[in-house]
Amino acid sequence: MIFGSDNMAPVHPAAMAALAQANCGYTPSYGTEDAMKQVTAQIRDLFAAPEAAVYLVATGTAANALALSIYTQPYQSVFCHELSHVHMDECGAPEFYSGGAKLLTLAGDNAQITPEALHAKAGEYHRGDVHQVQFGCLSLTNVTETGAVYTPAEIAALTAAARTYGMATYLDGARLANAIVAAGCTPAEMTWKAGVDVVSFGGTKNGLMGVEAVILFDPQKAWEFELRRKRAGHLFSKHRFLAAQMQAYLQDDLWCHLARHANAAGAELEQALTTVDGFSLQYRRDANLMFAQWPRAGHDRAKTAGAYYYDMPGTGAPDDILGARLVCNWNTTSEEIAQFAALVKG
Amino acid sequence: MIFGSDNMAPVHPAAMAALAQANCGYTPSYGTEDAMKQVTAQIRDLFAAPEAAVYLVATGTAANALALSIYTQPYQSVFCHELSHVHMDECGAPEFYSGGAKLLTLAGDNAQITPEALHAKAGEYHRGDVHQVQFGCLSLTNVTETGAVYTPAEIAALTAAARTYGMATYLDGARLANAIVAAGCTPAEMTWKAGVDVVSFGGTKNGLMGVEAVILFDPQKAWEFELRRKRAGHLFSKHRFLAAQMQAYLQDDLWCHLARHANAAGAELEQALTTVDGFSLQYRRDANLMFAQWPRAGHDRAKTAGAYYYDMPGTGAPDDILGARLVCNWNTTSEEIAQFAALVKG
Amino acid sequence: MIFGSDNMAPVHPAAMAALAQANCGYTPSYGTEDAMKQVTAQIRDLFAAPEAAVYLVATGTAANALALSIYTQPYQSVFCHELSHVHMDECGAPEFYSGGAKLLTLAGDNAQITPEALHAKAGEYHRGDVHQVQFGCLSLTNVTETGAVYTPAEIAALTAAARTYGMATYLDGARLANAIVAAGCTPAEMTWKAGVDVVSFGGTKNGLMGVEAVILFDPQKAWEFELRRKRAGHLFSKHRFLAAQMQAYLQDDLWCHLARHANAAGAELEQALTTVDGFSLQYRRDANLMFAQWPRAGHDRAKTAGAYYYDMPGTGAPDDILGARLVCNWNTTSEEIAQFAALVKG
Amino acid sequence: MIFGSDNMAPVHPAAMAALAQANCGYTPSYGTEDAMKQVTAQIRDLFAAPEAAVYLVATGTAANALALSIYTQPYQSVFCHELSHVHMDECGAPEFYSGGAKLLTLAGDNAQITPEALHAKAGEYHRGDVHQVQFGCLSLTNVTETGAVYTPAEIAALTAAARTYGMATYLDGARLANAIVAAGCTPAEMTWKAGVDVVSFGGTKNGLMGVEAVILFDPQKAWEFELRRKRAGHLFSKHRFLAAQMQAYLQDDLWCHLARHANAAGAELEQALTTVDGFSLQYRRDANLMFAQWPRAGHDRAKTAGAYYYDMPGTGAPDDILGARLVCNWNTTSEEIAQFAALVKG
Repeated sequence: MIFGSDNMAPVHPAAMAALAQANCGYTPSYGTEDAMKQVTAQIRDLFAAPEAAVYLVATGTAANALALSIYTQPYQSVFCHELSHVHMDECGAPEFYSGGAKLLTLAGDNAQITPEALHAKAGEYHRGDVHQVQFGCLSLTNVTETGAVYTPAEIAALTAAARTYGMATYLDGARLANAIVAAGCTPAEMTWKAGVDVVSFGGTKNGLMGVEAVILFDPQKAWEFELRRKRAGHLFSKHRFLAAQMQAYLQDDLWCHLARHANAAGAELEQALTTVDGFSLQYRRDANLMFAQWPRAGHDRAKTAGAYYYDMPGTGAPDDILGARLVCNWNTTSEEIAQFAALVKG
Repeated sequence: MIFGSDNMAPVHPAAMAALAQANCGYTPSYGTEDAMKQVTAQIRDLFAAPEAAVYLVATGTAANALALSIYTQPYQSVFCHELSHVHMDECGAPEFYSGGAKLLTLAGDNAQITPEALHAKAGEYHRGDVHQVQFGCLSLTNVTETGAVYTPAEIAALTAAARTYGMATYLDGARLANAIVAAGCTPAEMTWKAGVDVVSFGGTKNGLMGVEAVILFDPQKAWEFELRRKRAGHLFSKHRFLAAQMQAYLQDDLWCHLARHANAAGAELEQALTTVDGFSLQYRRDANLMFAQWPRAGHDRAKTAGAYYYDMPGTGAPDDILGARLVCNWNTTSEEIAQFAALVKG
Repeated sequence: MIFGSDNMAPVHPAAMAALAQANCGYTPSYGTEDAMKQVTAQIRDLFAAPEAAVYLVATGTAANALALSIYTQPYQSVFCHELSHVHMDECGAPEFYSGGAKLLTLAGDNAQITPEALHAKAGEYHRGDVHQVQFGCLSLTNVTETGAVYTPAEIAALTAAARTYGMATYLDGARLANAIVAAGCTPAEMTWKAGVDVVSFGGTKNGLMGVEAVILFDPQKAWEFELRRKRAGHLFSKHRFLAAQMQAYLQDDLWCHLARHANAAGAELEQALTTVDGFSLQYRRDANLMFAQWPRAGHDRAKTAGAYYYDMPGTGAPDDILGARLVCNWNTTSEEIAQFAALVKG
Repeated sequence: MIFGSDNMAPVHPAAMAALAQANCGYTPSYGTEDAMKQVTAQIRDLFAAPEAAVYLVATGTAANALALSIYTQPYQSVFCHELSHVHMDECGAPEFYSGGAKLLTLAGDNAQITPEALHAKAGEYHRGDVHQVQFGCLSLTNVTETGAVYTPAEIAALTAAARTYGMATYLDGARLANAIVAAGCTPAEMTWKAGVDVVSFGGTKNGLMGVEAVILFDPQKAWEFELRRKRAGHLFSKHRFLAAQMQAYLQDDLWCHLARHANAAGAELEQALTTVDGFSLQYRRDANLMFAQWPRAGHDRAKTAGAYYYDMPGTGAPDDILGARLVCNWNTTSEEIAQFAALVKG
């Protein structure tokens, strides 16, 4: 009954097997190995983007900060949601990598930005005013930090709004697989066809050991990305082991199957809890994570029995209604969901 | 016959086994797992430093740049050898992490700094002169970039010299295991007993997949290190897999055995080549890597037969004497050394 | 009828005379001149702070960014009002000087922060959470950007609140003279006695050509400030001309007289406009600047006759009620106020 | 007998008069005043560069660091002489402004770089190697830090060499007027016609109070320069007083007359000292400053009589031959030169 984070889940056996298989003798280092060439070709195929530049890094924060840094000058800004990971959970990584850009935060339900909110915030700034930070780029997260999923149409509307200010769009895809599965679209439809310039395609939260792909749809940015990655210490010498994980992830659409499982578990968990007296969702759940609240006694029973998840404040609820963030993953079972729901229910 | 880099070598089976073993169900993330507590205790034991703070990162550049950043203010300098990895091979990572500190380079045989060279360079700067960058820290590498090993006494002399200018000392230990084995000293003798403030204890070049420990002998710097690591995207969510590798490395002194093997292979390779007409070393070899030169025909024969290593310029030699960097590793065999030497010899 | 900015006003004759007087032969450079020693002594006297370190820079943005940089690590935050100059009007200077710190913005009437707002925002962050930016410092502005004045008691309450999070307090005093005069307190009461750690004492907006003093009540920060100032290109070689202006400013309390005049002009202007139909203040006016609104016809008449000020949006008023920022200065006359009010009134 | 620095000299009366004249009522701020438009037009004329962007800052370090920052990415390098001001005397300002670029230093007589030295240093770096900092720009100083003057042809050869590596060239012209006068060329010949991309045209050392013009021959870099200037706190609100100084400097070629006087004084001083027993120059003198050495007794006599200059080490001379940096300026008189030489001679 571990709903703490998809980061706490084990690595999928296929990824472990790929690591073992990659450990065969001497191999060129720093991303020059053949496996990386294959990964690039496979991801270009998957995203229907034959020109895209593809890079692997080991953490989501590295993917985010590097991607933002190539689209944001130090005297520019990143438009992002006030609950976004890049703003709240990275100890200032985007500021560090960009050389001191300013993150401008927007409110919005379900940790989602609307074009209206973007225009309103942009209206506080003036492109030609030297006293203000300039428009840099827009950062979206899909699945959002509270568990909602932007549709391709919503993303397209946002990237179009951003482009009126000259802003490119980065899509933080730490859970991109879950978002694509939830939206029922193709990777291309959720990204470059919707106007996204650069996206991360996360593996770590979805069954890998530690790999995120960064996909640049404008290959002219590739060399700068490589230099910034090296300078940040994120170019791995034994890079073959990043490539091997990603190969396993792409093989037979493993990424898709794992995300589908996690999303289904999320739906099952929500469904199972719905009948709990006093249960409610604080945000819309579209994929594998949710913010929910229910009476204290249910929390006590579940935790005593070994359940694990993050406590959250309740939203304006009475003191005995406590909040929780619940995350399902590729390994979550119907049994633990049922057991957990029974405990909460009492 | 791969002498290109210890980075090209496979991962030791014990490390692979440890990864598999660590993949057992749900585990706390971001370094809070029990395995990391054990690693900390083991490294404190190994280095006889019960107060030391211990952290794991995945690349040598990350270890170097983070360690330097906590001892170098933006308006300060890093004293380092002109051939040092931090200066020549990290695309400016120390400058990035420190917020723009200046690396001041020193010459010296065998990529080694002497106290005299340090005093001479320091004499160009004045602590109280606001127009100049101030003294930050000293960065040493052991094994050096050209294959020599500082003795503990040499390190002690250098840290003492540095301290007269208020400079702390960082020891880049990407090959620290090889240096310790070569010097025949303890980890403590080569580090804090010789005045080193912070050291990296590299695993990646010595049989691991991608782990370097950073050991801070002053635990008051620990929290800043943690924040800078997170901010740089180098705090791993599935950190248990870094810890597992390091546990394997420490188990039964694996680090020591692997380094001893690699150093012995280095000596064997040097010995085997000594009888080649026109062979000479460009720098002193003390461990597992060497810079050497010999006639072009020997290069041609070896490469045609599949040998791999980095070409280097010859040192003032006639045009037909070409240079090479040769690196042995934990996996190098006597057979490939003999085969290689025979080819070179012709 | 120029109410555009106190920056548009001329330099007071006493400052011009001081510049001419300082131009007498050869003088040591870079702040080592005798005049600077006198300025330091005089400011220590004026602020009853015999240990304070005192520095001069030429712009308010330099004063702000340098002062914040010595109290904010790159992985920390600056708490400031959402309308503050440091956040809105400096193109990211605090981010640049701090090496990428994050400005966290707070709402509040009259561009003022309350202890409650500070605690609420601080409550979103956790000192021991490595994923978040850490508490850096609090930045206040007095006179605030919309024309209100914090009392010493209000400042003391805020610095005390900040200190519970380990945060020092910077006071942006681009209009400190006006604030002190309006509050009827001493410089010491408004600054260190109220818990302020570092303050700028602006001269440029109050009759000088371009000088701001930065006063550090903790002299241990002095050397770092000097290094950062030099590194930023803000240490003047012919520094004697900054010192001369500040000497004129301090002589016979010129700073006080000029600020009193400007504040009185502000009161007179408000008074004169109060009788205009449809006139209202958007924020409380305590000193020499105000945000006000009145019917469009009054704007048209005034501008046609040559009045100059910045247009601002009206606050929820009907379309024909337009906003304006009006700033008086040491040189504003009762005649131009009367003429302007008459035009607005029609 | 003040030969300490041209920074210690008074401001020319014409500049003082211009300041007084500029202090006439209200004026738009932040460089939007008419005077700045005139300065731009005049400088475009003077440099025969009708498209150039022209900006004013108050210090040489600001001019240098800003100019370099628009031609150097954080992951790039600045090639400069090992004695250059940007490397030795700015406390790391170029590193700060560029976001952590690396200054690569070259040796060379008279603080001058040769194309050969540039090619040799560039040969240590490889454009396509992600592990190394990339080629950024070349920084030259004219008059050099030791008093020599590059000819236009020498500069052209250097910018051509730089361009083979994709590097732009910045010319630090803190003493550009002296260099132009010494070379007997036009401003255009020394700058853009010789391949220079951006130059500073210093006024502070040549009779102004504190103004340096930065001239960008590629106007596409203008907006970035403006943003970086603001962000660094170097955009003056009462900018009219910078413009006024520069107007005085340009009026009737004042810059030229003052530089010619200073250079002539330099020649006169060298000539007067030549007959001193044991006198020698350490570097070639082409303009108004020189590094020289002579017996200790001459130093003692001069200093006792009130002469002021910077002591320098002698070059391999016997202990009783001491070095000195001697700088003449627009205000140096033949009388003080004669008096000084007589004292030195004894």
